[in-house]
Amino acid sequence: MHDLVDERNIVSHSVFAERIRALQAAMSSHKVDACVVLSADPHLSEYLPEHWQGRQWLSGFDGSAGTLVLTAEFAGLWTDSRYWEQADHDLAGTGIQTMRAGAPDVPGPADWLAAALPRDARVSIDGQVLAIQAHRQWQATLAAKGVKLVCDLDLLDAVWQQRPGLPQGTVYEHLPPFSCRTRSENLAAVRAEMAGRNADWHWISSLDDIAWLFNLRGDDVSYNPVFLAHALVGKDSARIFVAPGKIDESLCARLLQEGIHVEAYDAAAGALACLAERETLLFDPARCTVGVLAAAAFVGKVEALNPSQLFKSRKNAAEADHVRRTMEQDGAALCEFFAWFEAAQGSARITELTIDEKITEARSRRPHFVTPSFGTIAAYNANGAMPHYHATEASHAVIEGDGLLLIDSGGQYLGGTTDITRVVPVGQVSVAQKRDYTAVLKGMIALSLAVFPRGTMSPLLDTIARMPIWQTGADYGHGTGHGVGYFMNVHEGPQSIAYRATINPNMAMQPGMITSNEPGLYRPGLWGIRIENLVLAVPAVETEFGEFLKFETLTLCPIDTRCIELGLLAEAERAWLNDYHAQVRNRLLPLVDGKAKAWLLERTTEI
Amino acid sequence: MHDLVDERNIVSHSVFAERIRALQAAMSSHKVDACVVLSADPHLSEYLPEHWQGRQWLSGFDGSAGTLVLTAEFAGLWTDSRYWEQADHDLAGTGIQTMRAGAPDVPGPADWLAAALPRDARVSIDGQVLAIQAHRQWQATLAAKGVKLVCDLDLLDAVWQQRPGLPQGTVYEHLPPFSCRTRSENLAAVRAEMAGRNADWHWISSLDDIAWLFNLRGDDVSYNPVFLAHALVGKDSARIFVAPGKIDESLCARLLQEGIHVEAYDAAAGALACLAERETLLFDPARCTVGVLAAAAFVGKVEALNPSQLFKSRKNAAEADHVRRTMEQDGAALCEFFAWFEAAQGSARITELTIDEKITEARSRRPHFVTPSFGTIAAYNANGAMPHYHATEASHAVIEGDGLLLIDSGGQYLGGTTDITRVVPVGQVSVAQKRDYTAVLKGMIALSLAVFPRGTMSPLLDTIARMPIWQTGADYGHGTGHGVGYFMNVHEGPQSIAYRATINPNMAMQPGMITSNEPGLYRPGLWGIRIENLVLAVPAVETEFGEFLKFETLTLCPIDTRCIELGLLAEAERAWLNDYHAQVRNRLLPLVDGKAKAWLLERTTEI
Repeated sequence: MHDLVDERNIVSHSVFAERIRALQAAMSSHKVDACVVLSADPHLSEYLPEHWQGRQWLSGFDGSAGTLVLTAEFAGLWTDSRYWEQADHDLAGTGIQTMRAGAPDVPGPADWLAAALPRDARVSIDGQVLAIQAHRQWQATLAAKGVKLVCDLDLLDAVWQQRPGLPQGTVYEHLPPFSCRTRSENLAAVRAEMAGRNADWHWISSLDDIAWLFNLRGDDVSYNPVFLAHALVGKDSARIFVAPGKIDESLCARLLQEGIHVEAYDAAAGALACLAERETLLFDPARCTVGVLAAAAFVGKVEALNPSQLFKSRKNAAEADHVRRTMEQDGAALCEFFAWFEAAQGSARITELTIDEKITEARSRRPHFVTPSFGTIAAYNANGAMPHYHATEASHAVIEGDGLLLIDSGGQYLGGTTDITRVVPVGQVSVAQKRDYTAVLKGMIALSLAVFPRGTMSPLLDTIARMPIWQTGADYGHGTGHGVGYFMNVHEGPQSIAYRATINPNMAMQPGMITSNEPGLYRPGLWGIRIENLVLAVPAVETEFGEFLKFETLTLCPIDTRCIELGLLAEAERAWLNDYHAQVRNRLLPLVDGKAKAWLLERTTEI
Repeated sequence: MHDLVDERNIVSHSVFAERIRALQAAMSSHKVDACVVLSADPHLSEYLPEHWQGRQWLSGFDGSAGTLVLTAEFAGLWTDSRYWEQADHDLAGTGIQTMRAGAPDVPGPADWLAAALPRDARVSIDGQVLAIQAHRQWQATLAAKGVKLVCDLDLLDAVWQQRPGLPQGTVYEHLPPFSCRTRSENLAAVRAEMAGRNADWHWISSLDDIAWLFNLRGDDVSYNPVFLAHALVGKDSARIFVAPGKIDESLCARLLQEGIHVEAYDAAAGALACLAERETLLFDPARCTVGVLAAAAFVGKVEALNPSQLFKSRKNAAEADHVRRTMEQDGAALCEFFAWFEAAQGSARITELTIDEKITEARSRRPHFVTPSFGTIAAYNANGAMPHYHATEASHAVIEGDGLLLIDSGGQYLGGTTDITRVVPVGQVSVAQKRDYTAVLKGMIALSLAVFPRGTMSPLLDTIARMPIWQTGADYGHGTGHGVGYFMNVHEGPQSIAYRATINPNMAMQPGMITSNEPGLYRPGLWGIRIENLVLAVPAVETEFGEFLKFETLTLCPIDTRCIELGLLAEAERAWLNDYHAQVRNRLLPLVDGKAKAWLLERTTEI
């Protein structure tokens, strides 16, 4: 059930039409025939500071993904199927067309422009926010039709009055005991990789790599504890480019003692320009932009995945142990939340937004909690069928009647990052709902029980979780597992349990990697189911055939057994669930009391 | 137990050393610094006519895979792990080193040459047998070090006195009822693909594509019912280039009525040279050689998988039905063989070679049998641990004592191609052997039961069969499934249930594809297990999530239940096996009698 007040209609759409016209005028005065506004920043972050939310400012569409394309006569916004409906709604009256990216007859924006523009036309994309890898694709597509790509203009800046400044959050150290590697260890590991590739320097623009490397954290963007910076690592010194004042003097001094120089954010280009022709710079073309790297005009170049991506993905024993303790606190918070939720049903008016508030409150009472690790998804019935649904003040459901409530939430703690999805029944659950829930649970258990050779390409593991869902003639459109950081981004690589991913050697599953295990099943207009635990890749056995890995389940929270069609569970699946619940009970009991304790005991009863 | 007479030692190895020296002399007189002798023919066939077995003639090594590299001072033969031991043995005394391809510190032959030779050195590879795709890789590797690749010399021809001529087998029609598509249907389908790629012509060198397209068969090579030819398909006519006399006059006349011209094998180059500059030629760079295509100097070119590869892989309903009948005959032959085998044990001396004879005899008594579809693998105990083992007169085991006998065999019938592996007990079977056998069986059953979206990339299905084997800390080095032709090559693409395969869109699993399902487990020095059925991809269900496929098991032959550790089978697995055996019994009973009937009844008893 939706509340039907939509505040957005109150804002006049003509504002956006005016902004578009202003940008088209700027295009004309700079003699460009088309302008592409990406949803990206110079660090290629998942969450953008407001300064780089130009596409939202221009169009009014605030989905997380979208590419705005303007010519003199056309304005179109490409966005994927998650956002087609929202875009149609948000863009009405702005003169901007929704372009349904991924639909059979809709070309991508580069192909569309290549077909629409005459030879020698000029397309402007701000190179500061265009990944080197993406630049090559744009370049190839446009050049094939004789269209020119211009990357040195930020046309948006000319028209965006009162453009928000850069975030000014304070940078702080991630300290022991939670930090389990020293900066010098991290730097030594990265430098060994640099040496292996004969690189004198390594450029880093990606914020999680920088935060990890220097054991620093910040709060410049939502949910990810990172800060805006670039870094340049040399053989025996390193430089962090960050806005003045964000790192206080005493921390600067401590960093300097380790050969780490803190310099101004806008000194980055100058530093790159000074690298000598006889030297070699290592960089990651998927994690640097063409605009930022343009300054490195003279130095020799070698491309590779940022070495820190692999180091960071493999948690060491001390980190894994902190995550286990963090999962106990997170699970205890969830017990408190669910105990409240079950008791309050029927007596209080609970909406999807209440769920978000209450779950964050419960986490906030736990030690070492910092922030949510992403925006809580609380989605009732049909809303649950939209995997990236977010309730808003303007549009959200009340939890009443019969159905399934999907809650996907997580926390950033000093000792780890959590991400969990549970589905719980409200009122009566139908047989069809139970069948779907059981299929998803079987998929989740199948991956939990998997044993596989060390180094198996992570996308290949996806089939294991999907099999029981495929058996029912269903499937789901997202991957089964993403990497998860350690008090760091909730989405990280290089592993990806997603069968549609293009496989590359860096995706090999290695011990210490933390990954989500989250199969789902979505019935549009009816309900959505997803069950998600985080799992840690650990050694299983070593034989004449080599090393084998298995998954240790880290997440601790009951999986609601009231939604299970018991006859569909195999003996081994039932045994896994009972073992899991015994462990949840044993580890969470000391951390809860009162109603939460009673709820935990009830919801972990053996089946 | 091996018989220990090795005839090969009687042939002097100095013969090969002399041949190598002769080739080195030819290199010198042609001013090339290195010569590479591939194991390939101009059709890139799996089985080579003797004429192109130059690597064997030069080195004495007769494994199925090997690349011989000569410089003035060096002779080395690269071969994969299957053949390392055999190569060491065969090459002893020839002066040729075994190069262990795939071992960690052994570069590939191109990398080795690029490192060993000075700038401007010349490497000769006979372009007539070098795939266009492979040529690009060689070229890139050598050019990076300034080494030149020469492809217009056949140095071997200069030194190979009494080089065998080309095979002179007769070409015949594959006729109805077994042929279930007309030539004009096949040509129309290929021409539609040509039109879709704006191609005026399509060049085909691959023998199975040619045989399929024209409903013709031959016996120029072992096991594959194909004949040496090239073909050029135009918009309304087609040309087959084949040695004179192989296609008799009346068949030529019938072909001509359909616009198909039969021309001399060596007229192929001339035909390519005549294609006009304004025209476009479609060809498959993995299935044409650089030497053959060199003649197409002027015509425009477009590259793609041969369209016939996809058409041929998807059997139509009539073909599938013939295969079902063929499998009944093949299964009945196997019942007769196994009944003989069990009765003869203890009373007759049975060797691995006897197995091959008897199994081929049993198939030969069946209607429409043509030849075996590959060399029978009968491998007892430790021999079974070598997945590509072949017993020879010189070296083979006697079936006696206790152990496991692995038999991998198949037949070409007018109504289909079969390929089956079974493992049967001899004397006592150990608990460890039963555990391994059961793990392999569970893997085979898991894939047999799989349901998956139409278009799933076939390599992703490999995980399903491997999971139960991985659970035991074991793995196997080969793929789980290869495509199988219809009275055609026993190995075909484009699908490949092999998780190490590089995924491309042509590998999507489609209805009508016949694939092997053959997980294995090999304990070097002890025993080997592989259980193989052929399966047909068929529609499972269509839902709001799209079309789903499942596998229909085609192969009909008992799976020996005496090797199963029953406690390890899940209920669903046991049910699958009992259902399968009920079907095997029902469909084979009408085709066997006497001892074979008794054996069938006993070996399909419910467990």
